[in-house]
Formats: sequence, C-alpha cells, structure tokens
Amino acid sequence: MNEGHAEIALNLVWVLVAGFLVMFMQVGFAMVETGFTRAKNAVNTMAMNMMVYPIGVLGFWLVGYGLMQGGVVIWPSLGHRLVGAHEITVQIGGHALGLFGAARFALLTAPHDPANLTMFLFSAVFMDTAATIPTGAMAERWKFSAFIVYGLFMSMLLYPLYGNWVWGGGWLAAMGTNWGLGHGHVDFAGSSVVHMTGGLTALAGAIVLGPRAGKFRRDGTIGAIPGHNLPMTVIGSLILAFGWFGFNAGSTLAGADSRIATIAVNTMLASSAGALTALVFVWYRLRKPDVAMACNGLLGGLVAITGPCAFVSPAAAVLIGLLAGLLVVTAVFWIETRFRVDDPVGAFAVHGVCGAWGALSLGLFADGTYGAGWNGVAGPVRGVLFGDGWQLGAQLIGVVTNIVFVFPLAYGFFRLTDRLIGNRVPAEVEWSGLDSTEMGSEAYPPG
Amino acid sequence: MNEGHAEIALNLVWVLVAGFLVMFMQVGFAMVETGFTRAKNAVNTMAMNMMVYPIGVLGFWLVGYGLMQGGVVIWPSLGHRLVGAHEITVQIGGHALGLFGAARFALLTAPHDPANLTMFLFSAVFMDTAATIPTGAMAERWKFSAFIVYGLFMSMLLYPLYGNWVWGGGWLAAMGTNWGLGHGHVDFAGSSVVHMTGGLTALAGAIVLGPRAGKFRRDGTIGAIPGHNLPMTVIGSLILAFGWFGFNAGSTLAGADSRIATIAVNTMLASSAGALTALVFVWYRLRKPDVAMACNGLLGGLVAITGPCAFVSPAAAVLIGLLAGLLVVTAVFWIETRFRVDDPVGAFAVHGVCGAWGALSLGLFADGTYGAGWNGVAGPVRGVLFGDGWQLGAQLIGVVTNIVFVFPLAYGFFRLTDRLIGNRVPAEVEWSGLDSTEMGSEAYPPG
Amino acid sequence: MNEGHAEIALNLVWVLVAGFLVMFMQVGFAMVETGFTRAKNAVNTMAMNMMVYPIGVLGFWLVGYGLMQGGVVIWPSLGHRLVGAHEITVQIGGHALGLFGAARFALLTAPHDPANLTMFLFSAVFMDTAATIPTGAMAERWKFSAFIVYGLFMSMLLYPLYGNWVWGGGWLAAMGTNWGLGHGHVDFAGSSVVHMTGGLTALAGAIVLGPRAGKFRRDGTIGAIPGHNLPMTVIGSLILAFGWFGFNAGSTLAGADSRIATIAVNTMLASSAGALTALVFVWYRLRKPDVAMACNGLLGGLVAITGPCAFVSPAAAVLIGLLAGLLVVTAVFWIETRFRVDDPVGAFAVHGVCGAWGALSLGLFADGTYGAGWNGVAGPVRGVLFGDGWQLGAQLIGVVTNIVFVFPLAYGFFRLTDRLIGNRVPAEVEWSGLDSTEMGSEAYPPG
Repeated sequence: MNEGHAEIALNLVWVLVAGFLVMFMQVGFAMVETGFTRAKNAVNTMAMNMMVYPIGVLGFWLVGYGLMQGGVVIWPSLGHRLVGAHEITVQIGGHALGLFGAARFALLTAPHDPANLTMFLFSAVFMDTAATIPTGAMAERWKFSAFIVYGLFMSMLLYPLYGNWVWGGGWLAAMGTNWGLGHGHVDFAGSSVVHMTGGLTALAGAIVLGPRAGKFRRDGTIGAIPGHNLPMTVIGSLILAFGWFGFNAGSTLAGADSRIATIAVNTMLASSAGALTALVFVWYRLRKPDVAMACNGLLGGLVAITGPCAFVSPAAAVLIGLLAGLLVVTAVFWIETRFRVDDPVGAFAVHGVCGAWGALSLGLFADGTYGAGWNGVAGPVRGVLFGDGWQLGAQLIGVVTNIVFVFPLAYGFFRLTDRLIGNRVPAEVEWSGLDSTEMGSEAYPPG
Repeated sequence: MNEGHAEIALNLVWVLVAGFLVMFMQVGFAMVETGFTRAKNAVNTMAMNMMVYPIGVLGFWLVGYGLMQGGVVIWPSLGHRLVGAHEITVQIGGHALGLFGAARFALLTAPHDPANLTMFLFSAVFMDTAATIPTGAMAERWKFSAFIVYGLFMSMLLYPLYGNWVWGGGWLAAMGTNWGLGHGHVDFAGSSVVHMTGGLTALAGAIVLGPRAGKFRRDGTIGAIPGHNLPMTVIGSLILAFGWFGFNAGSTLAGADSRIATIAVNTMLASSAGALTALVFVWYRLRKPDVAMACNGLLGGLVAITGPCAFVSPAAAVLIGLLAGLLVVTAVFWIETRFRVDDPVGAFAVHGVCGAWGALSLGLFADGTYGAGWNGVAGPVRGVLFGDGWQLGAQLIGVVTNIVFVFPLAYGFFRLTDRLIGNRVPAEVEWSGLDSTEMGSEAYPPG
Repeated sequence: MNEGHAEIALNLVWVLVAGFLVMFMQVGFAMVETGFTRAKNAVNTMAMNMMVYPIGVLGFWLVGYGLMQGGVVIWPSLGHRLVGAHEITVQIGGHALGLFGAARFALLTAPHDPANLTMFLFSAVFMDTAATIPTGAMAERWKFSAFIVYGLFMSMLLYPLYGNWVWGGGWLAAMGTNWGLGHGHVDFAGSSVVHMTGGLTALAGAIVLGPRAGKFRRDGTIGAIPGHNLPMTVIGSLILAFGWFGFNAGSTLAGADSRIATIAVNTMLASSAGALTALVFVWYRLRKPDVAMACNGLLGGLVAITGPCAFVSPAAAVLIGLLAGLLVVTAVFWIETRFRVDDPVGAFAVHGVCGAWGALSLGLFADGTYGAGWNGVAGPVRGVLFGDGWQLGAQLIGVVTNIVFVFPLAYGFFRLTDRLIGNRVPAEVEWSGLDSTEMGSEAYPPG
C-alpha cells in the first residue's frame, strides 16, 4: 500500500497537513471579519467567508489551477512524475515570457497523481485566502449574488494569472534567467501573490461599492461604526496566526527541508513584533491600548514575513514585523482619513500595504543562506544588504506589476458587475441589515 | 529512544495527528449544535457535546475498543506485533462470521504497544463522532442523566458492534471472502460505520423523545424554532470541514500511503459541491441563500465522501457531493414536514441519509485504482461503473444491516431508558430552558 | 534542498507541528478565561491572552531562551550540531549545580540552525502557556500596563530560571547524577515547569491584587460573579484538550519515538477521567451537573498527566486523572471559602494543585518501561510502586522548590510593581468595567 520512499512520503504529509492548517484560516478570517461588523450583518459576513471556500475550490478546480499551475513540469520534493504540462508564452526580445498554464483543468489528467493532487489542495487554500480578503473590505453592503460572481472571477481568473507569473513558471519568475534580475521575483509564501492580490482587489471593491451609510458624513466628520463582537475578532486573529505556520512553513513543499524551522520562527517573531509595535503606536496616538489594532499589527507582521520568511534571519524577521506594525496603523488611518475609503476591517492596510512591504523586504534582508537554484538561477537569494541590488529590483517589479495589473483588472470587474447585476444592496436593505433581508436569517434570534 | 524505521514512525505520527484533528471535531459539533439551539439550552447542548468525549472515551477504553477491535491481529502499517487477538464468531454455511472482539479491554494487554494505542486513540475519536451526533437531534429536551447513560451505551455497545462487523474483521467485511460479494462491505472512513450509526441513533432518539414543545402545533402548522447563534453554527461547520481531513485521510493508517492526496482532495471537492448545491437549491426553493442549509450541504458532502474517498476520482467526488447537497435539503424538509420528526440540527438528514448515499456511491464510482487485497480479496475495489456489480451489493447489504440493526437497537434502548429513568425533561423545565434548571448554569448571565 | 536523513526530518516536523498546536492553546486559554469573566471586562481578558503571546515571544527571544536553554549542548533527535552552550553553575559539595544558561540570546548564534530554532519555538509556546495562566486568576481588576511588565518578567526571568533547572541541565535535573535521587526531577511535559510555575504565579498575583469588588462581602458571605459566556468557556476547554496532544506528545522531541502513542492515549484518558470525576463530584455536592467544573476537571486531568504522561500505563493515567478531578473541585472550593482568595477561573486549583499532583504521581506510577538514560542516569524511570523510592524524593524536591522559589519571587515582583506603577485599576474603573475605560473598546457594542 506504500509508494515512494520515506522522504517523499514525509513531504506529502507535510504539505497536506500545512494545507489543512491554511484551510483552517477560513475560520480565522470569518471570525475577524464578522467580529468587526455589526450584528445585523453578521450572517452575511459569515456566509461570504464560508461560501468563498466551496465556490473558490470549485472554480479553481475547474479552471484556476490549470491556468496557474498547468505550466509546471515537476515538483521534485513531492515525487512528481507527471508529463504534459503546457504554458502559454509570448516571445519578447528573444525570451519566452510565460503568461498562463493550459493543462490539468478539472484534475482530469493524472487524477490520482499524489503530487498533482497535493499541489492542487495546497494551491486552492492559498487562492481561497486571497479570495476571502475582499469580503472584509466590502462587508455590510455587498449584494450576495454579486459576491458569488466575484468568487468565480477571483478563483478562475484573477488570482491564477498573477500566481502563474510568480509561482507557475511565468514571466515574473523568469526575470532572473531572462534578464539577470536576481532570482526573478521571489515570493516564498505569498506576500505579493496572495496578500497583495487580495488586498488590492479589496481596495478596488471598496472603492466601487462606496462607503457604508453613515461612514463619511456631509459635514466632513467620519462616523465610527464599531463591530459587534471584539472577542470574536481577537480569537480569529489568533487562529490566523496559528494557521499561518502552515501557510509559510508548508511552502517549502518539503517536510524534509530543515529550513521549515527558520520559517516557523520568523513567522512567530514577525507577528509578535507587528502586534507589539501596533499596540504601542496606537496606545501612544489614541491613549488607549486598542486591541483591534494590535490584531491588525499581528496580521500585518504575518503578511509581511510571508514573502521573505525562508530567506531572512530571525533578527531581520523582528525588524520586518516591527515596521509592519507601524505601517498597518498608519495605513488604516490614512485610508480612512486621507483617501476616504471605507474598509471596515482594514483589509487593504493589512494585506495590501504589508504585503508590498514584505515583498520588498526580501530584496533588503535575504541573507544568502537559502534558495540556491531558485527560479533556475544559481547561488542563494541575496538582498541589497547582502550583496545583490538586482534582487530588490525584481521584488519592486513584482510589486508594481501586482499594483498595475491586479488593481485595474479588479476595478474593471467590479465596475462591470455593477452595470450587469449591481454590487450594492439597496439603501433600505443596508439600513435594516443584510441578514434579515438578503440572507433571510438573523444571526442572534431572540429565544 | 527511537524504535522502528522511518516509514512506520511516519505512519504513527500521521495517524496520531489525524486523530487529534478528529478529536477537534468535537469543537465543531459543539458549535454547530449549540448555534442551532436556543440560548436557554445552550449550556445543556454544549455540556452534552463536551461530556460525550470523556464518557465515550472511558466507555470505549473499558469495553468498546475490545468489542470492536479485539479480533484484529495486525495493523502492518503501524508495525503491530501484538498477539492474542480474539474474535467471537458463529459458523453459518461453512463460513465463520465475526460477531465481536473479545480482547484488549481497558488496554490491559500490551499497555505500551504503539500500534495498539494509536488504533485505540484513532478508533475512540471516531466512536465519539458517532456518539455526538444524536445530541443534536435530541437537543433542548433530553434529560442530562439519560444522556450520560446513552453515552455509555453508544461507546460500550452499539457503535463497537457494527464497527466490528465492518472494520474489526466481522461478517460484513468478510462478505467478499465468504460469499464473493466484491471486497465485502467497504467503508473507508465511516459513511456507514460512523455516520449512519450516529444518524440512525439520532433518528431513534428524536422519535422516542418526541418533538420540542411548539414545534408541531395542533392546527397542523410547524413552528420555526430558530437557533440562537448562527455565526457559531457556521464556524462549527468550517471546523468540521477542517477536522474531516484527519477523519478521511488519516484512515489510511499510513502517512506513507500516497493515496492520502486523493483522499484529501476528494474530501475538499465533495464538501464544496455539497455546500454549493444546497445553497443554490434552497435559494431556489425559499428565495433566500439560507446559510444554515449551506452548512448542512457542506457537512452532507463530507459525510457522503467519507466512505468512498480513497476509491473514487476527483470528478466522481464532485458528483457525490453535488447529490449529497440536494439530498440533505430534501431530507431536512421531508423529515420535518412528512415524517413530522423534530431534529433541531438536521442530524439524520446529514449523517443518516448522506451516510447511506456515501456508502452506496462507492459501489458505483470506485474506479479500480486502489484497495488491492482489501478485506482479503485480490484486485482493487471496483464499483458498477468500473465493472463490479457485486461490490454495490456488498454496499447495499452494509447499509441495510445498519438500518435494521442500529435503528431498532437504539430505539429499544431509548424506550428502555424511558421506562427506567425517563428521557425527557418535564414540560416546565423545557419551557424555562434546561440551563437554569437541569444544568444549574446559564449560558449568558447578565453583567 | 533537503538536509539530514528522514528520521531527523520527521522529528523536526513533529516538534514544529506540536509547537503549532501548543500555540493554538492560546485560543483555548483566551476563550476559557474570557467566558469566565463579565462582558464589561471581555476585551481586557481577551487582550491579555492575546498580547501575552507577542510580549512573551519577544522577551523569551531576547533573554529567556538563553537563560533557560543556553546551557544545553545537544538535542540529538533534532540533529543538533551547535557548539558553544554555556551554563552558569555553582560548586556545592563537589558537584556543579546549574543555575542558568548564558548563550543564544536573541538567536544570534546559529540563526538558521534547525534544532536551535525548533527548540526555541517549542520552548517559547510552553513559556507562553505558563505566562497566560495568571491572566485568568488576575482578571477583571489588573491594570493593562502592569500586565505588560509582568509579561516581560515571566518570559525573561521567572519561567526560564525554574525551566533551566529541570529542562536546561540545571541542578534539579542533576539530582540523580549528583546525589543519587532517581533520575533527578523528571517532568516530561511540564506539570511543574509550566503549570505549577503558572499556577503559583497566578496565586501570588491574585493575593497581591486582592479580590474583585463584591466577591467577599463584609457580612462574610461570598458573592457569585458568573462569567458572561459559558459556551465560550466550554469551547476553550475542548480547544485546550486538543492542543494538549501537541504539548505532551511533542515533548518527546521526536516523532520517531513511538512512545508518542502512549503519551497521546494517556493524555486522552487522564483528561476524560478528570472531567468525569469533577462532574460527578460537583453533581453530588451541588445537585447540579456544573459544566464549568467539568471543564476544570478536564483541564486538571490534563495538567496532572503532563508530567508523567510518557512513563505510566493507561490504567495509571486514568487513576491520575480521577484524582485530579476530585482535587480540582476541592481546591476551587477551599481557595475561595477557606483562603478567601479570588481566582475567577480557578487557575491555581487547575494548574498549581493538579500540577503538583502530576509531578508527584510520576514518582508513584512510573512503570520502568521508558526513560533509560534520562538526565544521564542509567536504567528507566521508576516510581515507588515499581521499585524506586528515590524518584519520588526527586519529584518532591522539584515540587517544593517550585513552591519556595516561584511563589516568593512572583509575590515579590507583584509587590514591587504595586509600589512602582500599581497593579490594580481604580475602583471606578473596576465598577464600570475595564473595557470602556482601560482598553477604550467595548466587547459587544450595540448595533
């Protein structure tokens, strides 16, 4: 009954267990976001966070996985022997630039190949993490049917495309071999691929939807709309910090890669530093130890370390987290007060801003102890402080590409659905709450 | 300090970690069920879901494990070297039919044997899953002392018997070698053993207890009794979907069996398909995207794929889940409106109906790529669509046996306890809620 | 990309996954404690349980880990090759007695060594478990700034010192080689190191803070101050029981050590026995099946089995748990009625009393099947009932040392901070709740 030798078996077990932990992060997101919203919209927020999982999984199974990973030939750590991968490329300047994969749709090829299925599961839960981020920024006013259409768009098209470019052998990964830019855009576990994509889509969606009624008042003041259950948000944040160990350390695709220890410790340290600086910073600014902001700092630290976690030292991880904590507090205030965008849970600040910082930080702090042969480039990955300025260039191009590709595409999609089916619930629905109207169920019916 | 080689070590780790995940499903059940009940009974529902774990574990330790697994000689993947197993059999038509085991009570034999202890833990948490199912169907009116007696009955007798027949070397497992019915009744992770047993016991209990006051009115109308915390139910459902990866993939009893990838992906796909079809179906019927029903669809998909998960392709898993989602919605309505049984959480629809569907579906879709030598029969397991009609027969016999054995035995037990100590709380206790009366604690005391 | 052979790889994976589970116990503690407190202090209680993680991790990273583990040369199961450990010792009677480590501060030495980082992570989450225990005993009246100072004291000094003596090669571990007392103080997973330390610190803190307003009245009666969310407490308890599998079984530091099966089963059985006896005992005393007390029994059983889990048989584990269940109920009543200490969650009863019982029980029931070479002493670990009375002596000295060292040091610390910054919130803050005043956020704002 046993196939493969012990090391490959251990790697499959590791990636699957890590994938389960990432799937469990859906619970964390559901609790963070629902805690931050009002009781009258709690069922709606919960329902989005729950249904994004099945919708995303099925969309990714049918189409998204093939677009994202259909061009990848081998995952040696998982013992892959699958043939028939196919990547669609364009030729520019004598180099083949990968655009998207075109194989493995609906897992019809090699339906029992362990490596293929394990990668599908692990990729699907990452996609779902990205897909669930906008449900927070767009909460309390988004039509449920429009959300479902969005779920298919994200899982079948938007996430897989950028994902292919970085993780599926596409052109951002090939910037090293093609153009000599370090190891190409390196994103260990998804600061850009997952979190920036989710965060920028969240921002686009929040802009298209507009603010909740009562948020930005005619007299220029900004209304505070507190969530209904702060303990739920705290618990959700801790659950995310737990699941994130799978998110980051699982991304080795190998339990036999002892770098998992560095990754797990860096994840722990950066999140801790983020939570602490966010708490101290907001305590200093508002004179209160705002625990919601500490949660965002914890998450910001996690988002930032996601990209560089395998490449930097523990001390650098603390630095990266410290700055993420400051960034997230600043961004939350700026987005609300300067840009007047209503993002009820701070999704763009946490995932977009800290995601960008994380992707760039790899270009600063990667210490040359890991990543030999990454993206086909010899030698380990090094940031500016350890001798390779080009790597920072590759990081920057990846970040800019995410901004100029994901944001407009998401914005265009939301404008299109606005026209076709409408994104926003009627004012009276928003007023009375989406639960009793849209969803037909109240969160907390009286006895 | 290390014993055994790496592969057996990996298998022990895998099964233990999977067992932990299954134990964590207690949290999921507690939240799903408590969310579906009223605040005045929240402590009682929580207490049943919590106490079923210690009571079940101790009853299973003393007696149940020996009855269920006492006849099994070897678990090669766990490196078992234990001797002295004993199965009580009857001779019918020249064949020995296993009825129950008679060894390993209280783990007194081989008290530190890793395979024995690992199987005990893994078996115990499966038993507990079955045992916790009726607490949902019987919620809001069940006397706590009667529940405790039930917990011992389930863990010490009812679950172990049917379990022995399928997983302990009993007569349902031997239908292949004895009578040529495929590989005998094949249930990979418990569609029949765990979920039908729990679901049919739940149905028997709900019938004996009768409906909650106010459910079925004199004028023939049916009262809606909404639960008090729908977000709790959604979170619990996602937790169950998380723990279920351990439930299904752990049932290889081997991390070194690369089929774990197929199992995990099938689990994910079937649950997704179940949630989606349940949502769409109820949205079409009630004009509202009822998230509670989507949760039941998710769980129905999980229950259905539990039996066939290792034997079918991902595409078949989607089909199995799709139908489970439709089944669960239909069954919930029928049980309430046609059979007028009050099952507050839909336990019979989810676990009984979808469990039966899952067990049968293996007889349709098993694709002949796995299970060589299962239950002592050469060649892989095949369903009707892949060439073996007898396998479907074996599945059908297992399902029918569960119905004609578990249901009457459970029904008889509940009738007996009704006579001896009473199952139902007095009307005034039900009226004021079980928490303030039976349990002596309120769920949410005012500040 | 792979280093080390499969067994060491499996061990690293095992310890990391177990460490993740222990980190998840923070969610359990947060829910248990917050459920036991009033709604007006829910944010404060949550915030302490959440922030103790980042504060503790950073303090432990900077200083605590070096003090505790800086003297350890090798972890063979993790493939350690690190040199340069340094333990500060005193010479007494010709023996070197280890006092504290002095290396590896801030993980600056060997920043990517897998064994070093894995041990840091695993040690950090254990420290955090100890550190979070007092937040329950001191809830509803503790100034948040004083709590933060405490978090640094616990993670940087108090926990690491006693931890070094038992787990870091210090003098309590060396009582076997130095003085012939069995294998020295043996604490497999922390009945004394983690739970007594946390429990005694909790007691010291609760005494220094004094009881909550309204607890002990002038007329001598004792006010009941029920928590605001008992379901939250039950869920938290089950989550702790889940994470505890990582706590205990991970403490082998080796997935390839098949004793993990014994440990996991003993953990399950002792917790079950504790829950059951606590339920029955309180049911007998108060005539109600008090589920909060059953939760404390579950936790008491877990705490008690933590120390001896690898060394005793399943039957002994049941005995240890049975007594823990009785102890915890008795202790909760005595602490409140005889000693008139206000411990809102029963932290001292659960962690202090049952921790001491667990540490001693090893000296009774260790059955001589495990622990050959432990702390440098030949032969397996045996308790009195299996032939070694000296082992019980070593257990007793460890327990007494914890009492006479941890309690006074913690008490002195709290008295000092009382003088310097104050520990207790003003009466009017306590009256209106810490959330709206200290924390600036309410737990459950109205819609």
